[in-house]
Amino acid sequence: MKLLEDRILRDGVVLGDDVLKVDNFLNHQIDPVLMQELGNEFARYFAGKNITKVLTVETSGIVPAVFTGLALGVPVVFARKQKSLTMKDNLYSATVYSFTKDVTNEITISKQYLGKDDKVLIIDDFLANGQATNGLMEICKQAGAEIAGVGIVIEKSFQKGRKILEEQGMDVYSLARIQAFSEGTVQFVQE
Amino acid sequence: MKLLEDRILRDGVVLGDDVLKVDNFLNHQIDPVLMQELGNEFARYFAGKNITKVLTVETSGIVPAVFTGLALGVPVVFARKQKSLTMKDNLYSATVYSFTKDVTNEITISKQYLGKDDKVLIIDDFLANGQATNGLMEICKQAGAEIAGVGIVIEKSFQKGRKILEEQGMDVYSLARIQAFSEGTVQFVQE
Repeated sequence: MKLLEDRILRDGVVLGDDVLKVDNFLNHQIDPVLMQELGNEFARYFAGKNITKVLTVETSGIVPAVFTGLALGVPVVFARKQKSLTMKDNLYSATVYSFTKDVTNEITISKQYLGKDDKVLIIDDFLANGQATNGLMEICKQAGAEIAGVGIVIEKSFQKGRKILEEQGMDVYSLARIQAFSEGTVQFVQE
Repeated sequence: MKLLEDRILRDGVVLGDDVLKVDNFLNHQIDPVLMQELGNEFARYFAGKNITKVLTVETSGIVPAVFTGLALGVPVVFARKQKSLTMKDNLYSATVYSFTKDVTNEITISKQYLGKDDKVLIIDDFLANGQATNGLMEICKQAGAEIAGVGIVIEKSFQKGRKILEEQGMDVYSLARIQAFSEGTVQFVQE
């Protein structure tokens, strides 16, 4: 998606060999207009798949997921990274390891909001090693829900996430695919 | 806002004397259509205030804030509740105690995204004791930013938050104001 690639080139900050900071428009400051464009594009790609629910993980997946849900006309559910005091029982859960932060989180979704009649679109901000998406897929399995596909805002194509998801038969649609970071600049996959 | 009050009556769950769970449409599952209506209403109320930025705290304030920013045509910045590895320096920060969760969080905003030329609208999902909003106000003070007002989705008017904010001269606009929880049902402030 050219609009997103241009924004990454303009406002993304490359740190070291594998970290891209997009705090300017996605992970800290948020550009609502761009986010709506991303949501519309996910909805366009996955239209006709009879999706009943968009699933994501807090925090930065939520906004692209909500605009996708708005465009598709379906609710969004975000997995929580820690259990809150008001919600302890009746949860699906999975363990997710974050390489970036070197922490393991339990992600949870209330059984009330996901079930065997759901057809789910998983949305997340980044795809690197596929841990968060795998956690959501595990939760869908527990719920007996079908997965229609995976929508990713920024994919680091030089890491193993896409391969892991495709090996499980997933249709992965990424709006920006990064081939490499070279001398502080971003190179996209040529498609 | 009648649309919101009706939804609270239909899908809100009262726990004990002072907890309202709105996991059905705001805090876990999200209704994107309702959220856009809330954002439009905040934007309508605060239109003409020359707002340059919408400020909120992760997680559940983000979606109402983003729809408000979309309607006002300005960016949104969400304070993080813990420091991430990629962002440690150049932060404004404040301490926020959550009565609901009995935890104290450091909330932070990068100095890059808030400054003395900003006129800020603070948006949050709940106003109870005003701790989160006070933390954001403290951060605005550090940044030298002006505060145009505070928009709250659900106010527990029987707690002290509104009083604390009004004593500091804040214009507080809440879309639903709860007077009391009585025998498991919600009573709204009659205006």
